[in-house]
Amino acid sequence: MLRLHGYFRSSAAFRVRIALNYKQLDYQSIPVHLLRDGGEQHSASFRQRNPARLVPVLEDGALMLTQSLAIIEYLEETHPTPALLPRAAAGRARVRALALSIACDIHPLNNLRVMRYLKSPLEIDDPRRDEWSRHWIALGFTALEAMLAQPGTAGDYCYGDAPTLADCCLIPQVFNAQRVHCPLEPYPIIGRIYDHCMRQEVFARAAPAAQSDAE
Amino acid sequence: MLRLHGYFRSSAAFRVRIALNYKQLDYQSIPVHLLRDGGEQHSASFRQRNPARLVPVLEDGALMLTQSLAIIEYLEETHPTPALLPRAAAGRARVRALALSIACDIHPLNNLRVMRYLKSPLEIDDPRRDEWSRHWIALGFTALEAMLAQPGTAGDYCYGDAPTLADCCLIPQVFNAQRVHCPLEPYPIIGRIYDHCMRQEVFARAAPAAQSDAE
Repeated sequence: MLRLHGYFRSSAAFRVRIALNYKQLDYQSIPVHLLRDGGEQHSASFRQRNPARLVPVLEDGALMLTQSLAIIEYLEETHPTPALLPRAAAGRARVRALALSIACDIHPLNNLRVMRYLKSPLEIDDPRRDEWSRHWIALGFTALEAMLAQPGTAGDYCYGDAPTLADCCLIPQVFNAQRVHCPLEPYPIIGRIYDHCMRQEVFARAAPAAQSDAE
Repeated sequence: MLRLHGYFRSSAAFRVRIALNYKQLDYQSIPVHLLRDGGEQHSASFRQRNPARLVPVLEDGALMLTQSLAIIEYLEETHPTPALLPRAAAGRARVRALALSIACDIHPLNNLRVMRYLKSPLEIDDPRRDEWSRHWIALGFTALEAMLAQPGTAGDYCYGDAPTLADCCLIPQVFNAQRVHCPLEPYPIIGRIYDHCMRQEVFARAAPAAQSDAE
């Protein structure tokens, strides 16, 4: 059986949980507590699974798969139905661009280790750290909203009327935005897709609060 | 003909240039000066191509492709030979994980707009901004070096003995590391792959100094 090493609040792990649920793949969830005991991701046993000390890691037999987007592409190739990418190259490029605009342009700036470095050694106080988070989310969501508004892009989901890799990335990012009180009113398409997704069991069951390690 | 909107020093554009060269695809290079006149990426005409105001953009007929990794996956699907991804799903996942460990975990923290925000409003001075860059590169390269050292990974290139998507990402990141004087001695595999790649015409011709807009 697949084994997912993750953390309830990790948005990268959340992405993979959505993909696993959508493809109806059973998996065992193995919590890695990112804050307890200085962070379980730094333990010798976890570092053997992933030298980058980051969740998620998906174990498929002897394979240790890392990086959420690489994991989802792997699941797409090994379990193609239902698909998380369209068939035609142009659509696939579009969905990947939407996903990467979150995974490269927003999320890396707001993850745990970056927020910690801003606090120490850079001595950026709490309000300015929150403002940092909101700044990058607002910049990224402004771009994403414009991309989603382009012809042939958003429907009920980011790309048309079925979930794709882009939704796997968007929904966890909206959760993060809510945590730092980033206003979502300027992004009506993002807001509409979020509301629609969270009514679907595939997404709701992947949410942080629904995980066994939720606090 | 393909048209690549880029900037000689952009490492995301550099990635795509390597892929285009490797696949022997002719393209017209259209420079977008990221610093002149407040940044040409903010112009109305460029924003119509990419609302995210980032290079590169690859135009293929009416298609406007954004996000360097999505562009390279598109080139791989539309021009599969020579390949930049292995055939088997496990190898593809490995190559994508190496590429994403650069594209998500290192590069986003050191790009132009982030360095600017650190300067203003955060008032982080030059030495501490350089230290910020070196910190994330060192953390990322330490993880990457360990991944490359794992069985079945690095050969002459990041994955075996032919270029892949991972090398498209690694070489531009090494250029960035050199610009901020990040020591590379702790990463002998990365150093060896870099030296090997830069002796190949495909990589050398993609380098910043070889571009028409180089300064």
